[in-house]
Amino acid sequence: MALIVQKYGGTSVADPDRIRACADNVAITRKRGNDVIVVVSAMGKATDNLISLADSVAKNQSGREMDMLLTTGERQTAALMTMALLDRGIDAISYTGSQVGIITDTAHRKAKIVEVKGDRVRQSLSEGKVCVIAGFQGVSTAKEITTMGRGASDLTASALAQAMDADACEIYTDVTGVFTADPRIVPQARKLARVHFDEMLEMAGAGSKVLALRSVEFARNHDVPLHVRSAFTWEQGTWVTNEEPSVEDPIISGVVTDMTEAKVTVLGVPDRPGISAALFEPLAESNVNVDMIVQNTSTEGTTDISFTMPMADMAQAESIVQRIADEIGANTVTHDDDIAKVSLVGAGMKSSPGIAAKMFRVLSDEGVNIQMISTSTIRISVIMAAGDMERAARALHTAFGLDSGADYTAPLPERK
Amino acid sequence: MALIVQKYGGTSVADPDRIRACADNVAITRKRGNDVIVVVSAMGKATDNLISLADSVAKNQSGREMDMLLTTGERQTAALMTMALLDRGIDAISYTGSQVGIITDTAHRKAKIVEVKGDRVRQSLSEGKVCVIAGFQGVSTAKEITTMGRGASDLTASALAQAMDADACEIYTDVTGVFTADPRIVPQARKLARVHFDEMLEMAGAGSKVLALRSVEFARNHDVPLHVRSAFTWEQGTWVTNEEPSVEDPIISGVVTDMTEAKVTVLGVPDRPGISAALFEPLAESNVNVDMIVQNTSTEGTTDISFTMPMADMAQAESIVQRIADEIGANTVTHDDDIAKVSLVGAGMKSSPGIAAKMFRVLSDEGVNIQMISTSTIRISVIMAAGDMERAARALHTAFGLDSGADYTAPLPERK
Repeated sequence: MALIVQKYGGTSVADPDRIRACADNVAITRKRGNDVIVVVSAMGKATDNLISLADSVAKNQSGREMDMLLTTGERQTAALMTMALLDRGIDAISYTGSQVGIITDTAHRKAKIVEVKGDRVRQSLSEGKVCVIAGFQGVSTAKEITTMGRGASDLTASALAQAMDADACEIYTDVTGVFTADPRIVPQARKLARVHFDEMLEMAGAGSKVLALRSVEFARNHDVPLHVRSAFTWEQGTWVTNEEPSVEDPIISGVVTDMTEAKVTVLGVPDRPGISAALFEPLAESNVNVDMIVQNTSTEGTTDISFTMPMADMAQAESIVQRIADEIGANTVTHDDDIAKVSLVGAGMKSSPGIAAKMFRVLSDEGVNIQMISTSTIRISVIMAAGDMERAARALHTAFGLDSGADYTAPLPERK
Repeated sequence: MALIVQKYGGTSVADPDRIRACADNVAITRKRGNDVIVVVSAMGKATDNLISLADSVAKNQSGREMDMLLTTGERQTAALMTMALLDRGIDAISYTGSQVGIITDTAHRKAKIVEVKGDRVRQSLSEGKVCVIAGFQGVSTAKEITTMGRGASDLTASALAQAMDADACEIYTDVTGVFTADPRIVPQARKLARVHFDEMLEMAGAGSKVLALRSVEFARNHDVPLHVRSAFTWEQGTWVTNEEPSVEDPIISGVVTDMTEAKVTVLGVPDRPGISAALFEPLAESNVNVDMIVQNTSTEGTTDISFTMPMADMAQAESIVQRIADEIGANTVTHDDDIAKVSLVGAGMKSSPGIAAKMFRVLSDEGVNIQMISTSTIRISVIMAAGDMERAARALHTAFGLDSGADYTAPLPERK
């Protein structure tokens, strides 16, 4: 008998009909003799609706109170899913993150998991119950309700899979797997049968929304294979594992596009040691997720520093940067949220020189101006004007041989 | 410095504007130097919406899962209210029923309070914080989330007022106080300046929705004076206290109408000892709230038993009654949900004989047929066809001298 963790995302549980469809899916898995832990997100736009309620009530939002507010969405889905299972004759019980002992640090809205106790889950599984866990949340070492950031229900699922030593962790989402590009932007995009953790990590970091970065990080560090698939088809999705790519695999696995970041530039920064620390330490302390950082060559004793971050962090970042800029005697702070990030990700890059050069050539041929560049061993990201993004992504997808004419995602008759 | 408990009902916090208005009210109370504990209900129709979500997901609803689901409504309001207070520069913190240690028994959906610990509330008050508590909920002795029945946020408020030794417990609602009748049914209804706990208890039991029965019971037993008022005017509401009525007070305090009950009749019940116990014990065990019970005089060894209960309990009650009726050899079970209850409540009844006779005469003159009668020392209730209710209530209101031509509820310039 296998233990399977199944995580259902917001779109999969957006309304009562879909919750019942997911419950059917769980019931089938259970009736095949598996133990099942279900992790659920909030229904559809529930979290967004709560955030906009908070926006209409208060200008400044305490992290603790936002966590109190937002955790209710997942709890509602967990209770509803459990009722739907009970209605199908499947013994089931819902738990909050706190009740299953997902212990986090005290950083509200971005808490990190310290420990997964899971005693009640173990007990309920041994009694033959399906456990339905409210994702995204835990309880801090200070006994406060915490959340672990948007998309953290995936993290709840991988953490539980690891703590419970599950045989598989299935991530049900609104797409059928991980694609070589966002099909809405690149119509030629293909579904990948498998992706290495390192690639998935770079894709998530580059802005792919299929899996949340920290859940991939956790799954990689604890070697929890993830199976990304759709709750509404029986077809195989994409396996995310630590299996090394073979020489036959393409060099590039995907083109990732991201329009959710904004750029801040500090002009005329005095060029002396400690300046970067003075700028980025307070940002880190305020939990602003700085992504790319570029510092231009110093001229006449001053330098320019640009960095990108999620647009949501912009208001907070800007007031901090303005204060620091004044303190260190920089000239001006500008910002630009009309930017896009396009990244190439591929494990094959390690052994294939010249990928960056080819990328820049393709973009240049398309007349795309590059504003910032950042690279890792298996990723190259460039920042460009938002209006150039679609053209750039399609050209790169073609140039690196990712286009497919064939229908790669034909539904399979029977599920694994 | 006084400690004031303020409870805001669902209508008072129905949308962001109203939440902010209530926060203004709390802020004023706090700035006058009072310590404040705020208890909130779910926003407007939030609880009803969650119940209908549950209805669309599952036919049978586990009490534990319904409690997991429904408690989220009050938690959302508590977080939002706290944010609104923080936004006004008022230091505040939200707590769930579980976090403040409202310990209940394990009867989901109708749990009873066993103990109010309140350690975190005491600590936060001592730090100068306003505590905002999610009403209606607690945590059971088995560590499960429980709810205490519809309207139980009032109970949360009185229980906290008692446990914290508060100086006042203000119940903010959508009406300006307790009236001599429901003004939507009896336009001549007047607001009462004060009501005795015993009268309020009978009014709540008779179906008045202004205060939940169990909160009045709790307030009476622990002598917590309640002040029922509107959050959107500064006028004095109605004080509910244990002050004995004076001889000048009217004999009847109010006419209470109720259309939320249904009637079940078991015909041809063998007339032998133990039959009533056989019928009503299983109903009590299933937490069906039986209200009035009438047993007709036995004829030829059989008798008929009628009883009323909330319509919501009907489905559950009917299947139990049908089973018992078969077991004890009764003839038939019928039910009728097209009924209404009209009650006269007044502490003066104790010393004024003939109130019942006068009531029956008034109803007879109006051509109203009485189906069931039940009395206490200060209340007389009759069940009639639903269609007769309005006519009966108005006639009784007039006959017992409750009508008023004057505007009894002129707003006061300054609040106590």
